[in-house]
Amino acid sequence: MKNILIIILLSFSLLANASDKEQVSPAPNNIKLPKGYQDWAMISSSHRIDNHSLRVILGNNIAVSAARKGKTNPWPEGAILAKMVWKEGELESWNKAIVPEKFVHAEFMIKNSKKYEKTGGWGFARWVGLDQKPYGNDENFVQECFGCHTPVKDNDWVYTIPSKLPMPTKH
Amino acid sequence: MKNILIIILLSFSLLANASDKEQVSPAPNNIKLPKGYQDWAMISSSHRIDNHSLRVILGNNIAVSAARKGKTNPWPEGAILAKMVWKEGELESWNKAIVPEKFVHAEFMIKNSKKYEKTGGWGFARWVGLDQKPYGNDENFVQECFGCHTPVKDNDWVYTIPSKLPMPTKH
Repeated sequence: MKNILIIILLSFSLLANASDKEQVSPAPNNIKLPKGYQDWAMISSSHRIDNHSLRVILGNNIAVSAARKGKTNPWPEGAILAKMVWKEGELESWNKAIVPEKFVHAEFMIKNSKKYEKTGGWGFARWVGLDQKPYGNDENFVQECFGCHTPVKDNDWVYTIPSKLPMPTKH
Repeated sequence: MKNILIIILLSFSLLANASDKEQVSPAPNNIKLPKGYQDWAMISSSHRIDNHSLRVILGNNIAVSAARKGKTNPWPEGAILAKMVWKEGELESWNKAIVPEKFVHAEFMIKNSKKYEKTGGWGFARWVGLDQKPYGNDENFVQECFGCHTPVKDNDWVYTIPSKLPMPTKH
């Protein structure tokens, strides 16, 4: 009887853990992982040949709408940019195509001029790996993000230039 | 009076032309440009170092859903893949980042096993440039597309391998 009780308790514990894994902890500055960002529309892409990574930059509706209209300096309040980063690899079927391989991290810039006044009006956060572990030991991690973005202060602290796209058609 | 009439007619003609430019002609095999593809979700990206182009591969809901579940060999009926292609350039603010510059074309694969039985179950089409001019002089242009895709016959004729992504969270 005692053994059965232990097995039942263990099962509940395993179930609880499985459920926990579907949660992602917030960043050390309390920014929560934006829900559903994986399916946001595309703003641009890049291949960083210095650190051998491929990137796709997505945005929430506010950011994508601004990007499509060319109104990105400054980006509007509420805009969120999501940069997804992968290690580069070669496509097996076409080895002159460099393609995303291991997922490195997803990093975010969230525009809120008042809340994030001290860091150019942007909240920064990053989640590492497919299990999306928050980056940074404490809230000071944002100084690293902000420091790297200082060279693009005049572009509203953003490196990304929206890719040129055909206008949507009316048909 | 005659001059005024000519001016009025000319104005109508100019208006009609402006409106025409918002339309995009179908491909020579009668495939129509999928509406709103610019805002579809991302499946993968690539940097072709042989022809110096950057690509982002988007999909309609059916294709994205299949990609997220890893059910892509074969891709489901109704799936549409959109490959957007740009000439490579250097990001001015970080010259080790290769980024999309001039828009080259958007090309599509549309899965319909019966309708496109002769070309692996896929309909092919491409629209060139920001003004989206249909590619190909006549419907035989698809033989060029199909020929290039023959090496990936065992991958349901598709080069793209969906990028690894964190699972959506429940929070």
